Amino acid sequence: MRSRSLVQLKLPMKIAVVAPSCTLRPEAAEAVSAIVASRGDAQLVIHPQCFLSDGHFAGPDGARLEALREVMADPSVDAIWFARGGYGSNRIAEAAARDLPEAARSKIYLGYSDAGFLLAAFYKSDLNVAHGPMVQDVARDGGPAAVNRALDWLVRKDQEALEPGLSEGRRAMAFNLTVLSHLIGTAIEPDFTDAELLIEDVAEHEYRIDRTMFHLTGSEAIRRVAGIRIGRISEIPDNEPAFGHDAESIVQNWCKRAGIAFLGPADIGHDANNRVVPFNYRSN
Amino acid sequence: MRSRSLVQLKLPMKIAVVAPSCTLRPEAAEAVSAIVASRGDAQLVIHPQCFLSDGHFAGPDGARLEALREVMADPSVDAIWFARGGYGSNRIAEAAARDLPEAARSKIYLGYSDAGFLLAAFYKSDLNVAHGPMVQDVARDGGPAAVNRALDWLVRKDQEALEPGLSEGRRAMAFNLTVLSHLIGTAIEPDFTDAELLIEDVAEHEYRIDRTMFHLTGSEAIRRVAGIRIGRISEIPDNEPAFGHDAESIVQNWCKRAGIAFLGPADIGHDANNRVVPFNYRSN
Repeated sequence: MRSRSLVQLKLPMKIAVVAPSCTLRPEAAEAVSAIVASRGDAQLVIHPQCFLSDGHFAGPDGARLEALREVMADPSVDAIWFARGGYGSNRIAEAAARDLPEAARSKIYLGYSDAGFLLAAFYKSDLNVAHGPMVQDVARDGGPAAVNRALDWLVRKDQEALEPGLSEGRRAMAFNLTVLSHLIGTAIEPDFTDAELLIEDVAEHEYRIDRTMFHLTGSEAIRRVAGIRIGRISEIPDNEPAFGHDAESIVQNWCKRAGIAFLGPADIGHDANNRVVPFNYRSN
Repeated sequence: MRSRSLVQLKLPMKIAVVAPSCTLRPEAAEAVSAIVASRGDAQLVIHPQCFLSDGHFAGPDGARLEALREVMADPSVDAIWFARGGYGSNRIAEAAARDLPEAARSKIYLGYSDAGFLLAAFYKSDLNVAHGPMVQDVARDGGPAAVNRALDWLVRKDQEALEPGLSEGRRAMAFNLTVLSHLIGTAIEPDFTDAELLIEDVAEHEYRIDRTMFHLTGSEAIRRVAGIRIGRISEIPDNEPAFGHDAESIVQNWCKRAGIAFLGPADIGHDANNRVVPFNYRSN
């Protein structure tokens, strides 16, 4: 009887949601809470900081950092799920990764887009990070599938949630192209050596993608990757005149010029089909 | 009589115009040619490459590089004046600065905006570069004044054309902020040590300016500057919600965080008032 009651007391995975970038919409929080409740395999704790607002951000830098550090230090939290992107996590990323409490090391961190600044800083500090859907994604067309995919991976490491090109023997890292370009050369730049690099982007003109690829592939740090795979580059604004090259040929061209292997497509992007890329897949 | 005829044969300064980025508008070429003709103190040679068009660019990379290298190698050319910005000079900058002909070293190179990629690459190769108005600027409100300022400086090193904060003992470099951010860490990054860095930008959201300043001031190469001065950050698109910080406070904030001296305003920008910043002002 005693052992049985102990089993019954075992709590489901506890997932904490914080918003290091922009404010989470209450409707999205409610929709995801409902999904988690109906699944019954996880406990979702949405930090009140997610609903703060300070200009562009989900509260001032101090409040966003404090909420993030609070859940990182909480031993009862198994996973930290970033609420959404936008812009702003770079402003607290270096501080968030400093003097890490032991409890921060046993968690999973999941997000993408602007949260890539945190993925980079945390991965550099040997934390367990993954690129994948966030809470706000529930509002997309087909969004609940993205949210369930994220939960399937967080709760039970469902292999179906993973980007299909990943393989056991090869380290992979995934980033929004523009975010990655802005962290190269800063204190939060991780080591890319021999990793397969997956990139995606949204709402950038082709000339900007070209310029960012020039910058990225011009970096010695990036030239150490095993190769680059291209996810979806979506919602590209019209160029006037037409740029003359599409996103895939732009990426291929700069890989070629830099002597970086181009390894084909990746199933990631700013959409509901965005698959999960754990940076330490090799060790999972 | 002989010496008098020799003096009469002395030709005015020869200025070659090429377009390493986007296509020059014929109306702008005509307007600037008329200004130069009425001044009578310079010979303007507009390379036919300026009017080529290939998607976004003033001709394919090969044609833009060839025209630029042709005028660089021409001993009769005293100055190379970039036609306009846009995007694309980064695609040929490294090649343009390679194996320089001796004739390239006795010229002045003038431009800004996207041409900053060339200013960087050429300055790194010890060429004599300056940040200032371009040919296409004639189309701006008050544009002829910008063109005359550029010519006053090219032809007779008129001190009135210079950015007023420059001083003899201090090296200065000027760049479009976004362009500068994209060349950091690449093969064309020049040495910024102890230089005063002047930045300007146009048509970027405040969140992008903030992100770019994070990137820029996070670079060890940039942290070696003597300080940063801010030119005009113009045509900022609306942010939804309001970002909460203006461009000057954004720049000041990141300078402070990075331990870089903020040195006040600079009289440069994407406008007719754009003053000239020779990178080797110390030696002029």
